[in-house]
Amino acid sequence: MTENAPSFGLLLFPNVTQLDLTGPYEVLARVPGAKVHLLWKTLDPVRSDTGLTILPTATLADAPPLDLLLVPGGGGINALLTDEEVLTFLAERASDTRYLSGICTGSLVLGAAGLLEGKRAGTHWASRDFLSSFGATPVAERVVVDGTLFTGGGVTAGIDVALRIVGELFGADAAKRVQLSIEYDPQPPFDAGSPDGAGEVVTADLLARMRPMLEARAAAVEAGADALRRRRSARAG
Amino acid sequence: MTENAPSFGLLLFPNVTQLDLTGPYEVLARVPGAKVHLLWKTLDPVRSDTGLTILPTATLADAPPLDLLLVPGGGGINALLTDEEVLTFLAERASDTRYLSGICTGSLVLGAAGLLEGKRAGTHWASRDFLSSFGATPVAERVVVDGTLFTGGGVTAGIDVALRIVGELFGADAAKRVQLSIEYDPQPPFDAGSPDGAGEVVTADLLARMRPMLEARAAAVEAGADALRRRRSARAG
Repeated sequence: MTENAPSFGLLLFPNVTQLDLTGPYEVLARVPGAKVHLLWKTLDPVRSDTGLTILPTATLADAPPLDLLLVPGGGGINALLTDEEVLTFLAERASDTRYLSGICTGSLVLGAAGLLEGKRAGTHWASRDFLSSFGATPVAERVVVDGTLFTGGGVTAGIDVALRIVGELFGADAAKRVQLSIEYDPQPPFDAGSPDGAGEVVTADLLARMRPMLEARAAAVEAGADALRRRRSARAG
Repeated sequence: MTENAPSFGLLLFPNVTQLDLTGPYEVLARVPGAKVHLLWKTLDPVRSDTGLTILPTATLADAPPLDLLLVPGGGGINALLTDEEVLTFLAERASDTRYLSGICTGSLVLGAAGLLEGKRAGTHWASRDFLSSFGATPVAERVVVDGTLFTGGGVTAGIDVALRIVGELFGADAAKRVQLSIEYDPQPPFDAGSPDGAGEVVTADLLARMRPMLEARAAAVEAGADALRRRRSARAG
């Protein structure tokens, strides 16, 4: 990185949870001189899991050198957990990228790429147990830092994670200017951002709605962990 | 609105601050059965003020009936303050839309459309004084409710505003389920989301960087307020 032109890469994939990506994007793009790249297999428009459609800016094959590689989460991660093209891209680029970040269930994709082995990591509260399938230690914190790996809790945690990364790269005052510019002085109308705060009834109701997705995720995590073990055996053999 | 299929319309315009739009989008789209429409003059891709490019889903001319019409902010609002097509659309649709919302400097666009006269309203802290040019009473709060008008502070306040709107429309438990699903349990790494918290040095430094934009905005607000007076005189005459 040159101090004046940091290069941030965010993975943009079908059925991403768009706020996992757009929250950190807004923070990172406000660093003076920063370039933020939205990376996917093609340059075709990509639809989020709620229908917001965003244009990628570079393909995986043409991705420029990066100071940070960030993977957001969402329903679409299930397919990525066994996607050789994506997992190979992440594993290869991680070695020459200064910081690595997984937001929400994006952390599980880093796991499937073999990048969380022995690391402390966070993810969305409802998917936290899946982290151990990839050799990570699940941590119930909003921002989890392990060396140059920054992971976070669900969706909105990406804003907190990105501000921490800006602080790490450019100092507290630079991060504070960004935070002030986006008036990030949150006042949630309810204390419902965690299962403890939301209470048993709201949490059980939400989990019931999420059950089909979480069952599909359990199968995808198992397949992703199996594939990772096979790739490792092949390299070792 | 039918209880099961709320229809939310968000204005998507060139040089929008994308998080003003994508924050509320994520909240509103998670209401079961909801349709969220991204409205602009054409269906061509729209580039945000930091380069994120999003596809509109309906033109202003084809916008469906709406339960909520929300205007985000950003550098691009300056051009909207005298944009007859947009201001006419907002003024006409406001009369048959249940809730109206302005996020960040999107509130000023509602003002230029003549929709804030005599109302209490919020906006981004650095643009708050401009509200009075449109007959509104500026309020230094993160979420400002005046009847069916929901306005908010800068950028990230849109998440708080949208959760308040969901609570108003569907009850506290529905809003809590959304809040829990996006794990909105914010933990900003710094106390820098307001000028008071950020302190004099950070605030002065940021304001210095914003000065050219704010000077252009002052001229645009004056032109918008003049145009609104002329339209009102023409109607009265």
